Amino acid sequence: MTDNASSRTPLTLLGTGTMGTALARAWLAAGHPVTVWNRTPARAEALAAEGATVAASVAQAVAANRLVVACLLDDTSVGEALSDADLSGRDLVDLTTGTPAQGRARAAWAKARGARFLDAGIMAVPPMIGSPDSGAFVFYSGSAALFEECRDVLAVPAGTRYVGTDPGFAALHDVALLSAMYGMFGGVTHAFALIRREDIAPRDFAPLLVSWLTAMAPAALETADRLESGDYTKNVVSNLAMQVAGNATFLRTADEQGVSQELLRPYFDLMERRLADGHGDEDTTGVVDLLGR
Amino acid sequence: MTDNASSRTPLTLLGTGTMGTALARAWLAAGHPVTVWNRTPARAEALAAEGATVAASVAQAVAANRLVVACLLDDTSVGEALSDADLSGRDLVDLTTGTPAQGRARAAWAKARGARFLDAGIMAVPPMIGSPDSGAFVFYSGSAALFEECRDVLAVPAGTRYVGTDPGFAALHDVALLSAMYGMFGGVTHAFALIRREDIAPRDFAPLLVSWLTAMAPAALETADRLESGDYTKNVVSNLAMQVAGNATFLRTADEQGVSQELLRPYFDLMERRLADGHGDEDTTGVVDLLGR
Ligand SMILES: NC(=O)c1ccc[n+]([C@@H]2O[C@H](COP(=O)([O-])OP(=O)(O)OC[C@H]3O[C@@H](n4cnc5c(N)ncnc54)[C@H](OP(=O)(O)O)[C@@H]3O)[C@@H](O)[C@H]2O)c1
Ligand SMILES: NC(=O)c1ccc[n+]([C@@H]2O[C@H](COP(=O)([O-])OP(=O)(O)OC[C@H]3O[C@@H](n4cnc5c(N)ncnc54)[C@H](OP(=O)(O)O)[C@@H]3O)[C@@H](O)[C@H]2O)c1
Repeated sequence: MTDNASSRTPLTLLGTGTMGTALARAWLAAGHPVTVWNRTPARAEALAAEGATVAASVAQAVAANRLVVACLLDDTSVGEALSDADLSGRDLVDLTTGTPAQGRARAAWAKARGARFLDAGIMAVPPMIGSPDSGAFVFYSGSAALFEECRDVLAVPAGTRYVGTDPGFAALHDVALLSAMYGMFGGVTHAFALIRREDIAPRDFAPLLVSWLTAMAPAALETADRLESGDYTKNVVSNLAMQVAGNATFLRTADEQGVSQELLRPYFDLMERRLADGHGDEDTTGVVDLLGR
Repeated sequence: MTDNASSRTPLTLLGTGTMGTALARAWLAAGHPVTVWNRTPARAEALAAEGATVAASVAQAVAANRLVVACLLDDTSVGEALSDADLSGRDLVDLTTGTPAQGRARAAWAKARGARFLDAGIMAVPPMIGSPDSGAFVFYSGSAALFEECRDVLAVPAGTRYVGTDPGFAALHDVALLSAMYGMFGGVTHAFALIRREDIAPRDFAPLLVSWLTAMAPAALETADRLESGDYTKNVVSNLAMQVAGNATFLRTADEQGVSQELLRPYFDLMERRLADGHGDEDTTGVVDLLGR
């Protein structure tokens, strides 16, 4: 409680949208001197009252601190905002969501301008930022030295997970986890649609669904083991042939309940293709091979 | 330990395939007298050595006990196996997987033959049967009186969840949970495909995926609240408009990584349709309405 703001790493934050504002507040609350810049200056004003220094230009914001954090709309905004900035000797941490290729290109771009670089993927929504118990975390990849030096300041708004020197890996982890989540949400959507017109209260049904998905999620650990060993048939309990035989019941139930098959079909089609390729004794891991190059 | 088999409810089990055999063993181990019948008699012989009585015909098996449990391949097999059986005064518990409509039709069929009826959906694989800590459970629906009377004997092989008098509800719950699981598996498959050709070990990645899915699964509880209230906009943190804007990053990443979009597209297409219908301020709950009638 006696900590002085001057003992905390100062930093610059570019972008005070919903997420940027939450980040700025977390750092300010922890006593870090924060210089902010936003394309639309009015959107940064509220933070001045909370102790932030509002920079009049990107150049001024970047000049203010060695550590520069960007949280803008997309990768194009980052390129536009920093197109004329002098980044030499700066440390750029890019919290803007993007693809792995964008992360890699932005890393090369930063290096050419003399800056160290970390790309990041935020696994949280703004209300979770700055609450240590919220489970919020951020994937980081790129300069390991930079991550080590600034991990404490980065840990203020949310937990940190450094996933490698390849600057594309933070975005790749971010996108992979969120893509998996949308798959799960698709499954949940189908399940609710099935019970929707029946005398089953969604609130009674949902806890069963949550415990079932929670119990089945660890199957991904076995999938990982199989992918690494290359043997998709070892210790298989329900083989692909059995599972595909069961698919008809799921599709038929969708029809009975008047629910579109569109969210179920694509995965079932892949299971059937893998079976047709002669892999009935595997589990479902082989579908990963069908999906990618 | 001093329990005598004669104090335990005797029962008949039709079908000693992989699941039926596991069920029979659990009941025998708990001291229940079990009469078994299987279409192919050789497949029931092993259980005789373990204490089961092998019936020579379905008629004999059904005559042996009031409680008759069926665990056959599919609903058609149940109809075939029991076509000439005298079910009057019997209690039929059908553990065979089927659709809700099949469960309802089978209940009417059993009633016409003078039997009480429970349909069931087994949420387990055979190795989990008879192990109280395995998490295995079975959904039951149909006669509430019958469930109350035989819940203890039914609880021997796996946990019991009675979900209502409508005999279609056990199958509906079973299919809904498994459908949701396949959605999640589709998401997991996409995620592994994304990292597959990168220097990321599936075994390092999988635990991140499992904790993320486990953390996100409870979103289904909020979906249930919104479905019941009919208000899909209340307390929305990431609205549909924001989420749809982010979909481009997921699709683009799939392209970059050489991964097919086929598992992501259907859910994203539904999100976009709901947005186009003017619901950008909702969360994703409205997709449920698009999917069903
Ligand atoms: N919000 C979330 O739930 C969430 C979760 C995880 C990750 N993220 C990521 O965090 C980043 C920021 O999101 P947000 O929710 O804060 O978005 P937001 O509220 O829409 O804010 C966008 C920010 O980007 C700025 N911007 C847009 N185009 C620009 C340009 N060409 N040049 C300079 N600045 C530009 C905006 O400035 P103006 O004020 O001038 O428009 C604003 O500061 C995004 O990459 C997002 O994917 C957000
Ligand atoms: N195994 C699992 O992981 C699992 C999980 C959950 C639910 N279930 C459900 O449990 C039920 C049984 O599965 P299982 O794994 O035991 O299958 P299984 O090993 O293939 O056994 C199928 C059983 O059905 C009998 N059968 C098939 N057609 C018949 C007919 N027309 N008339 C009479 N009997 C017939 C078979 O008799 P024969 O020996 O004469 O062929 C055998 O006893 C299925 O509904 C399945 O969906 C299984």
